[in-house]
Amino acid sequence: MQKKRIKLTIAYDGTNYCGWQVQPNGITVEEVINKALCKLTGEDIAVIGASRTDSGVHALGNVAVFDSATSIPPERIAMALNQRLPDDIVIVKSEEVAPDFHPRYCDCEKTYEYHIINTRMPIPTKRLTNYFVSYDLDVERMQQAADYLVGEHDFVSFCNVRTQVEDTVRTVTELEVLREGEEITIRISGNGFLYNMVRIIVGTLVRVGRGFYTPEKVKEILEAKDRKAAGVTAPAHGLMLVEIRYPKK
Amino acid sequence: MQKKRIKLTIAYDGTNYCGWQVQPNGITVEEVINKALCKLTGEDIAVIGASRTDSGVHALGNVAVFDSATSIPPERIAMALNQRLPDDIVIVKSEEVAPDFHPRYCDCEKTYEYHIINTRMPIPTKRLTNYFVSYDLDVERMQQAADYLVGEHDFVSFCNVRTQVEDTVRTVTELEVLREGEEITIRISGNGFLYNMVRIIVGTLVRVGRGFYTPEKVKEILEAKDRKAAGVTAPAHGLMLVEIRYPKK
Repeated sequence: MQKKRIKLTIAYDGTNYCGWQVQPNGITVEEVINKALCKLTGEDIAVIGASRTDSGVHALGNVAVFDSATSIPPERIAMALNQRLPDDIVIVKSEEVAPDFHPRYCDCEKTYEYHIINTRMPIPTKRLTNYFVSYDLDVERMQQAADYLVGEHDFVSFCNVRTQVEDTVRTVTELEVLREGEEITIRISGNGFLYNMVRIIVGTLVRVGRGFYTPEKVKEILEAKDRKAAGVTAPAHGLMLVEIRYPKK
Repeated sequence: MQKKRIKLTIAYDGTNYCGWQVQPNGITVEEVINKALCKLTGEDIAVIGASRTDSGVHALGNVAVFDSATSIPPERIAMALNQRLPDDIVIVKSEEVAPDFHPRYCDCEKTYEYHIINTRMPIPTKRLTNYFVSYDLDVERMQQAADYLVGEHDFVSFCNVRTQVEDTVRTVTELEVLREGEEITIRISGNGFLYNMVRIIVGTLVRVGRGFYTPEKVKEILEAKDRKAAGVTAPAHGLMLVEIRYPKK
């Protein structure tokens, strides 16, 4: 039977997983989805994921594809899979895509949100999805700093070295710092992100918000092209991969 | 040494606890706080709690008191206790109160919030703090229904029988149904609540929101004085005890 390529849009609470990608030392989101897919289809399936989120990072819309000869209609695979998945992983949507669609090697735009809870004392129900910062944060100054990062830049100062990346130029299309009461959301979109780039940007913006850095300092950090110039990497659990948008064909 | 009465304001994520009150079959919030207090002070302390929240219910501001001869200044007990408590329980504030202050037998007003996530598919990171309702909910109709419940009424139709309660008349001072995007918050304040009263009110308002009940039906349910007339008890995990306000002395 002819195989179809199926695209999954996936939401998860990353708290109980060692990130997305299959690895020997712990349960990962990818592994749990692979096992559920094998049970559902009877085929030996390993998905290809769009974004290898780190341990503790959450998602509303990560993307993965796989090829299958299953007779289940593509749009019904989501519901069938959800019955075989734990509560902290949800397939939001399943659909057939072109056989050459690849979730990583194509022109897409990703949006992340980073959530900060800015209160005197931590809020227990938010502890696994928000970075708790008890110091006053000046959101206006954070936005001024953020504005320097929008556009095409070499973001090597905002990248933790994991493997050798040749090209560290990326385009940030949107970077907003929004306060609603005690909650601060940093929303960032772009055509790709270096390893830990969002979390280092957040760690740096928090230093601006506390008054340790001027907003202009962020421009200097960018120009320094040196990871040591930037702030610390903000914790993983505040980060949420919101959406990956692919060009319409 | 003279004992002081100390009031604690307590926030917790109720997910991992069998409710507030000490019981033989599982770990409770009260028990964890008692153990931390005994370690901190060296005294044999059992707190008196204001509200015995059910298993899975969360709190931003539950209240408990205890008497102690500790030399730790009252306002510093919070921080000292937090170092001995797990991340899902936080003492927000500690303060000395009058020796005759009792958190239950006095004139106070409580505020609860009930959180609903109204999306087509569940959101994993919200699954432990929000009730997931995939059907469209008409918030305006829910508010119309809610308005019938404000004021002094016999709420016996909105009470699950646990023990014999003689007086089932209570006063609801505020009942608001607010939508912000996909999130619906039902905020209710009053001078006391019967067993499961907030969750039965929510279960009933959801039936109104789905169109199964007219808003006027809620008036009939109130007048029926019969638990069977009302809707189902909404799940515990959507409920948050926000605040308990005591009269200033």
